[in-house]
Amino acid sequence: MKDTFGQSVSLTLTGESHGAGIVAVLSGMAPGIAVDEEFIADQLTKRRPAGAISTSRQEGDKFEILSGVFNGFTTGTPITILIRNENTKSKDYSEIAVTARPGHADYTAQCKYHGFQDYRGGGHFSGRITAGIVAAGAVCTSALARKGIKIGTHIAKCAGISDRAFCDIEAEIDILNEKIFAVLDESAGAKMEEAILAAKNEQDSVGGILETAITGVPAGVGEPYFDSIESQLAHILFSIPAVKGVEFGSGFAMADMRGSEANDAFRIGENGAVFTETNHNGGINGGISNGCPITFRCAIKPTPSISLEQRTIDFAKGENKDFVITGRHDPAIIHRARVVVDSAAAIVLCDILAQRYGTDWLR
Amino acid sequence: MKDTFGQSVSLTLTGESHGAGIVAVLSGMAPGIAVDEEFIADQLTKRRPAGAISTSRQEGDKFEILSGVFNGFTTGTPITILIRNENTKSKDYSEIAVTARPGHADYTAQCKYHGFQDYRGGGHFSGRITAGIVAAGAVCTSALARKGIKIGTHIAKCAGISDRAFCDIEAEIDILNEKIFAVLDESAGAKMEEAILAAKNEQDSVGGILETAITGVPAGVGEPYFDSIESQLAHILFSIPAVKGVEFGSGFAMADMRGSEANDAFRIGENGAVFTETNHNGGINGGISNGCPITFRCAIKPTPSISLEQRTIDFAKGENKDFVITGRHDPAIIHRARVVVDSAAAIVLCDILAQRYGTDWLR
Amino acid sequence: MKDTFGQSVSLTLTGESHGAGIVAVLSGMAPGIAVDEEFIADQLTKRRPAGAISTSRQEGDKFEILSGVFNGFTTGTPITILIRNENTKSKDYSEIAVTARPGHADYTAQCKYHGFQDYRGGGHFSGRITAGIVAAGAVCTSALARKGIKIGTHIAKCAGISDRAFCDIEAEIDILNEKIFAVLDESAGAKMEEAILAAKNEQDSVGGILETAITGVPAGVGEPYFDSIESQLAHILFSIPAVKGVEFGSGFAMADMRGSEANDAFRIGENGAVFTETNHNGGINGGISNGCPITFRCAIKPTPSISLEQRTIDFAKGENKDFVITGRHDPAIIHRARVVVDSAAAIVLCDILAQRYGTDWLR
Amino acid sequence: MKDTFGQSVSLTLTGESHGAGIVAVLSGMAPGIAVDEEFIADQLTKRRPAGAISTSRQEGDKFEILSGVFNGFTTGTPITILIRNENTKSKDYSEIAVTARPGHADYTAQCKYHGFQDYRGGGHFSGRITAGIVAAGAVCTSALARKGIKIGTHIAKCAGISDRAFCDIEAEIDILNEKIFAVLDESAGAKMEEAILAAKNEQDSVGGILETAITGVPAGVGEPYFDSIESQLAHILFSIPAVKGVEFGSGFAMADMRGSEANDAFRIGENGAVFTETNHNGGINGGISNGCPITFRCAIKPTPSISLEQRTIDFAKGENKDFVITGRHDPAIIHRARVVVDSAAAIVLCDILAQRYGTDWLR
Repeated sequence: MKDTFGQSVSLTLTGESHGAGIVAVLSGMAPGIAVDEEFIADQLTKRRPAGAISTSRQEGDKFEILSGVFNGFTTGTPITILIRNENTKSKDYSEIAVTARPGHADYTAQCKYHGFQDYRGGGHFSGRITAGIVAAGAVCTSALARKGIKIGTHIAKCAGISDRAFCDIEAEIDILNEKIFAVLDESAGAKMEEAILAAKNEQDSVGGILETAITGVPAGVGEPYFDSIESQLAHILFSIPAVKGVEFGSGFAMADMRGSEANDAFRIGENGAVFTETNHNGGINGGISNGCPITFRCAIKPTPSISLEQRTIDFAKGENKDFVITGRHDPAIIHRARVVVDSAAAIVLCDILAQRYGTDWLR
Repeated sequence: MKDTFGQSVSLTLTGESHGAGIVAVLSGMAPGIAVDEEFIADQLTKRRPAGAISTSRQEGDKFEILSGVFNGFTTGTPITILIRNENTKSKDYSEIAVTARPGHADYTAQCKYHGFQDYRGGGHFSGRITAGIVAAGAVCTSALARKGIKIGTHIAKCAGISDRAFCDIEAEIDILNEKIFAVLDESAGAKMEEAILAAKNEQDSVGGILETAITGVPAGVGEPYFDSIESQLAHILFSIPAVKGVEFGSGFAMADMRGSEANDAFRIGENGAVFTETNHNGGINGGISNGCPITFRCAIKPTPSISLEQRTIDFAKGENKDFVITGRHDPAIIHRARVVVDSAAAIVLCDILAQRYGTDWLR
Repeated sequence: MKDTFGQSVSLTLTGESHGAGIVAVLSGMAPGIAVDEEFIADQLTKRRPAGAISTSRQEGDKFEILSGVFNGFTTGTPITILIRNENTKSKDYSEIAVTARPGHADYTAQCKYHGFQDYRGGGHFSGRITAGIVAAGAVCTSALARKGIKIGTHIAKCAGISDRAFCDIEAEIDILNEKIFAVLDESAGAKMEEAILAAKNEQDSVGGILETAITGVPAGVGEPYFDSIESQLAHILFSIPAVKGVEFGSGFAMADMRGSEANDAFRIGENGAVFTETNHNGGINGGISNGCPITFRCAIKPTPSISLEQRTIDFAKGENKDFVITGRHDPAIIHRARVVVDSAAAIVLCDILAQRYGTDWLR
Repeated sequence: MKDTFGQSVSLTLTGESHGAGIVAVLSGMAPGIAVDEEFIADQLTKRRPAGAISTSRQEGDKFEILSGVFNGFTTGTPITILIRNENTKSKDYSEIAVTARPGHADYTAQCKYHGFQDYRGGGHFSGRITAGIVAAGAVCTSALARKGIKIGTHIAKCAGISDRAFCDIEAEIDILNEKIFAVLDESAGAKMEEAILAAKNEQDSVGGILETAITGVPAGVGEPYFDSIESQLAHILFSIPAVKGVEFGSGFAMADMRGSEANDAFRIGENGAVFTETNHNGGINGGISNGCPITFRCAIKPTPSISLEQRTIDFAKGENKDFVITGRHDPAIIHRARVVVDSAAAIVLCDILAQRYGTDWLR
């Protein structure tokens, strides 16, 4: 569905960059899950721009839970979270009512909405909408944590600079989740931040790759074909603006492997537990979890809003023109997209687990 | 939904490798679309194993249309296609009832279905089930062609050998659709086939990357967020066994670009039509088509069934063991997966277009 | 889905009686539909309690459109409407945390939500939530009106007193839509109001039947089987608290007819238009509209909140007890449910039409 | 969705009256449920015409399970059942290609499918398609029985003659399920059969009311609003051809009750179990089961195919005409619709329970 995703647990997402605010409805969560408003705020902080490497638009991201939480716990009925917009400068955006910013959705919105779209700040297409995913995802993340399921993401690559790979996944997830700029190797992170600033100084932007690991998902969850874990995760991940690629396990690198390398050998550990010696399949066989960490990577394209002059069109006049985007922009969004990916994954996992084990399983 | 995908146009897919057969239900297609049984057969031929580079299991793939077609045209009510299994050798597969073939779904199926799964030949997880996608997709492909929408896929990479890139997409789609082993550069194709045979001789298998282009989709189709073209396509693509990565446009390569490179400049052509100078975004901005070719790539992992001895477990006994898969196997499936990807894309596109323009648009 | 209904156009509904408020998300409406806030307010007024025959809880029903409307028109992206609760007296409801009010959902909520439900004023089960249906439905009603589609409902029966039948449907819909207490025969209406007051004086409540007619729906809309107009309408109608029966056309009365009577004879009018001489089938054959008025009736049970002492249980203690509901209650809700039914029907119709003719048809 | 209904457990239904056959896909059933082909055959027998009160078209209803069952048990993957048509006499139906049989879907099909519909014997609109519901429902009925959940339906009314009411529901369900003509009072049943024959002799047809009871559903199942038990059941019930009304509990009769009568008093029995003294709400409060029997009634309209001359139109010529339906017809279908209602209810219940308790609960 257009604005709602999920089956047993679902998210409905609405709002515009310069409208009243963002609303997220999280439906189907089990009753009795403690809702920690401080944790929601912390997660929103991870998405909020910070410092020189981000836009100067500062939103407090104050949120209000309008329904579904009573005495600090989920009721089991839909949870509605409102995040009002505060720091909007609509005057910055007036020209884009008729200008197709390259890499943005202005032109496609015009084709679809015939001029009725809210063009201010990208309107409904703005990355700001993802604050709703983060707020709702925080509730899911808490619920999963109580069941021993952890999610963490690092910036595997940014501006061509690579972070080191996961090593001790479970411990590193905890470390990453304490960070604002989530890298495993701080020196790589420092180089990334430098590269982001360099791009900013050149009025340009950079992209990167986010790598996510999920531990603690029981084996036997998911479905073959259309409800495969890959299908369900990829569906929501590709809903996040700027995500242009998703791969599970070794993903595109498997294209160059032979079967003898790509096949993860199953083994039984000393404790009797099944594991695989390698994890090229990202913890998923035939769409179903095998008990190993679920791993995936998302390609994040460079922020399309740059300050360099660009060639484009005025679609009202039907004319080519040169154009400079004014206003406040991010030279990179990958560090902010990180918690959006974590949150989206948390929502999908809650859905998959509730489908598999029923609506009470998460409480 | 588990076994049904799509909203206005949907596919329901059922069957097992060694059961009675495969059934595909294609629902929601407009009435009045000519159904060319010969074309369906041709498409099934592209998926069917052929020659030394494929398994020796030979299925005639005779299909029967059980409903939804009357006097050679779609009725508008659900189309049911049955492809019976013929050449099944169940005796080859008896040991896998308790053995987790590495890279396969035997172990996850056990965790999910508790021993009741049909383990013969991979059962419901078998790539054979994709014959249903191909048969249903053929009807969609014909319908799209009448509206000027074309889909074509080439083997961009196999066993480390790369095909050349698309150059004149529309013309090349037609050429590719005549081929069984779909490459743009025949000499690269010959090397790929050699490499597949080499892997086979070493009792191993290879993977690769499929690259797909779709032309003729009107601008303004798709949705932001959960019904983005990327989300809907990726959802069904990740349902295809062996697909472990999906990227749109330049995909993961965009991670290394700067915004000034990744942003596709909009231009107005001499005919007044809007186009982009580059197509790093794969014809999609904000989840919605911009009128340029929609392009994506799928990572296909190497066939997990190899003849080399492998380390694995007997999950009935809970013991490690060494294991050799007997029976008939493909040293590569990428050339066969090509038409599955085309067909899946055709089904999703019919759905997206029917959602956008109504149930009669395709007739 | 639990809290979202519809496919191309959908409604997500959240909130509790004594929480922050009610939120309705209307997704999938075409862009460019004028949104008349005064009309939304007028529709909410029809649902709001008024006079001696209703509860004394007075809510202003001030609403705020949080997204999806720009410069007075729908943008095409999701419309979010917030109606804050104002006049809540939570102290009235403290005992029901452990008491199963007969005819209410207190006990079933306890079984499902294990004590975490917001029990104040019925929480999420409160009829107050239907204000969200009305606000969203008003947008749909306006859109339908522009396409010549009208919806109207009268109180066909209340407290055993019957209104006269529809006679000139199209004109009478307009008349009904101006009324707060919607009857065709004012004298019958006066008797109903008397009967409601009589019940109130006896600390009791009454129910009734709502009859709805929809004109202007083109022939050929709907689907056989699961997306039949009956199925889609009944689905949302049975979501309205207090609706315990739905019948189309002559409905249950058809059970006593012979085929020769129940079969509506098709005729071609002087203008060449097809019509039926009778309309026992309620404008629907095989799930699809035939161009005649779509008619249906909803049974509304008497308000379960009455002031008489009732036998029930304390489900915390597991004991029988006698119980008197205090607080403010409606001796009847049928006159208020009327606009909820109209609104629900408007939402479903927009969905059915957008599915059939595409997402732009309503603009 | 058009041809698929359900969320965790779903049914896809296809086929035409005079095509190759009917296909039902039952998706999402737990693995490990014994599939009793004899019971499926028995259920199909209840739907199959028998004796003078039914059509003379005799179908053997031989079915073939094409997938999803292995060694006599469900695998957990989709179950596909094919029922081939055998006794088709297409010549009887040639005139209806252009004739709108009153009460039938010929005209609405023409409006929707533009002449491409399979008009033979009503095509996809034929009651024969419900054989697919029965075959799939039989698997669900068996699964529910193992969990102590029983479903039974009697002909509460036919041709104006009433059966007696349920008395000892659980025992009477067992008795009803052994009968072909399902009445509680055999003498009422005899009168109904006489009345059906009388109508047949007068070239006419009769309708009636089916009353269904379901026992053993745990309290706390279902959802408020859009996934209420009423909404989900009514959705599928209104998909059954000829159903024009659905009411739960006392349904339309509640419209005439006062709250003091309609409110079912909760009590705690000697065994500590909660029950209600009356069951006017049909076992459902706020959309959720309360542990009492779930009861509902369906209005079945008289068979539209009658042999009397009828006024109608030729929609190809756009002319009025008089018309006599030839061929084989049922003077009543209520006795055959009974098992369709039972089966549809069984499918919905499996879905509701799997949503609530997970995909393994039914095994």
